[in-house]
Amino acid sequence: MKEKILDYLKKEQEYLSGDEIAARLGISRQGLWKHIQDLKDLGYDIVAVPHLGYRFLSSPDRLFAIEIAHGLNTKFIARKIHYFDYLVSTMDLAMQLGMQSAPHGTVVLAESQTKGRGRLGRSWFSPKYKGIYLSLILRPKILPSASPILTLLSAVSICETIKKVVGLDAQIKWPNDIFICNKKVAGILTEMNAEVDKVNFVVIGIGLNVNNDKKSLIAQATSLKEQAGQPVSRIILLQELLRRMESNYFLLEDKGAQAIIDKWRNFSLTLGRRVKIYCQDKHIEGHAVDIDRDGALLVRKDSGLMQKIFSGDVMHLR
Amino acid sequence: MKEKILDYLKKEQEYLSGDEIAARLGISRQGLWKHIQDLKDLGYDIVAVPHLGYRFLSSPDRLFAIEIAHGLNTKFIARKIHYFDYLVSTMDLAMQLGMQSAPHGTVVLAESQTKGRGRLGRSWFSPKYKGIYLSLILRPKILPSASPILTLLSAVSICETIKKVVGLDAQIKWPNDIFICNKKVAGILTEMNAEVDKVNFVVIGIGLNVNNDKKSLIAQATSLKEQAGQPVSRIILLQELLRRMESNYFLLEDKGAQAIIDKWRNFSLTLGRRVKIYCQDKHIEGHAVDIDRDGALLVRKDSGLMQKIFSGDVMHLR
Repeated sequence: MKEKILDYLKKEQEYLSGDEIAARLGISRQGLWKHIQDLKDLGYDIVAVPHLGYRFLSSPDRLFAIEIAHGLNTKFIARKIHYFDYLVSTMDLAMQLGMQSAPHGTVVLAESQTKGRGRLGRSWFSPKYKGIYLSLILRPKILPSASPILTLLSAVSICETIKKVVGLDAQIKWPNDIFICNKKVAGILTEMNAEVDKVNFVVIGIGLNVNNDKKSLIAQATSLKEQAGQPVSRIILLQELLRRMESNYFLLEDKGAQAIIDKWRNFSLTLGRRVKIYCQDKHIEGHAVDIDRDGALLVRKDSGLMQKIFSGDVMHLR
Repeated sequence: MKEKILDYLKKEQEYLSGDEIAARLGISRQGLWKHIQDLKDLGYDIVAVPHLGYRFLSSPDRLFAIEIAHGLNTKFIARKIHYFDYLVSTMDLAMQLGMQSAPHGTVVLAESQTKGRGRLGRSWFSPKYKGIYLSLILRPKILPSASPILTLLSAVSICETIKKVVGLDAQIKWPNDIFICNKKVAGILTEMNAEVDKVNFVVIGIGLNVNNDKKSLIAQATSLKEQAGQPVSRIILLQELLRRMESNYFLLEDKGAQAIIDKWRNFSLTLGRRVKIYCQDKHIEGHAVDIDRDGALLVRKDSGLMQKIFSGDVMHLR
């Protein structure tokens, strides 16, 4: 009902009499008043003027499911949203929900994380209301070995979203980091629950620095606000990201991995550069030539030997 | 303390005075009496004779952690055992425990399962006290694509265990079923929680028909009791299985996948036969030649073309 009241008020942007709204929505004046109070408690700015009625002014800077779902128009992504003021980690909850049969496209959102997770057991700094911290549950019909394509797909979607909403050029550092002006703005963590020959579900975690102030960021990190010089609406950004994830997912289904990889190459910060890659206890140095359809990086070593690298930390050399 | 009392009584196999036991273990006569009552409630046959004391006669047919741990002598497997009279599924709980940092080698055991799971969403019939239903949490340092070797390792361990304890020749039908005299006696389900380039943990589920009566089994299934013509101790069987799993795991770590595959070939029911394999919507017919180090089945089709098969249901043809 709150969603309906909000939809109604947002659509008109004028004073609407309480009697009219209540009648339209089939609730009592008293019931309406209670819902409006609840919305105000959530941070919605709604003015009430005697004899004129209610008028919607603004939404709070919160990623409420009703805000994200409003006008989203996706087919399966974010049709179900789990929203929290804080979580230990959106990944942990999403993995749990996946095991409890949460549908394809389910999204877990948190305004902050007390132990946000990154790749290989690292942490993701998740200050409250500053970023987008989301986990997306997908149920693709793929082999476990094909799962890296979903990390590439997510990276492409993030870059496209930043370009569209903020107008900035973001680039992808293989395998899973998004950079603007050589500073990290987002990270992706892809986890799966699988049989040896069948993925049960995949959870894609995205951490994106949006309105973090420069002083709260380490030197190697940045935020969209810092890069754009002004705050960015997290709601508009998240909605665009969810739409892009969905359209790229359909692209993957229709045209296959190569279509995603072609897009990925255009955003790559790594290809064509001299790189040093730390994997396990050793490192490999060479020229990053391409990625293959498994998402592995192909590096030509100085000996001329081509090496396929599935995992590692990349250092870009001059 | 119950474990200590039991150890003590089992070791002697004679009447031991309550005063002596209590003194040795540093508890009161009353405390000892209470523990003995609890053990009797669990089904332990312990006689108490005035002036003579207590004497251990027998353990109940239960897979209690104290029974399994007694004399097990493993380094990491089953150092932690979670035992239940029944569970929905040992897999579900083990996947949960894995996410809660349960250590490498943790075992989940249930005397029955209400929804025991098999490969590709199938069920595993798990009647109470009749079989072994276990899930083992492992934390191998491997890529997700290497996980099938753990299914092969488990299959080898089951066959070795059956040979050692019951003296019967069991064989492996690729990828994950154990047969005796062309009837299924055990199944393996390997699931993992992984990043795209790193396995967080693997859970190996084993369902083994031990003391099921012939009339309770479908025509294509059998139990060790049916094949051996007499009941089999589930405790001795399970202990041997856990030891074999561990020694084969160490073999894998030391000598690599090839050492496991070499053992596997000797137990294979599939290799050298004409097979029809159903995978997804199609089927492939040909001669099963070998398995490769990824655990994939290599099939030579009539056209002479060799095909690598990661997943499917095998039908052995005459």
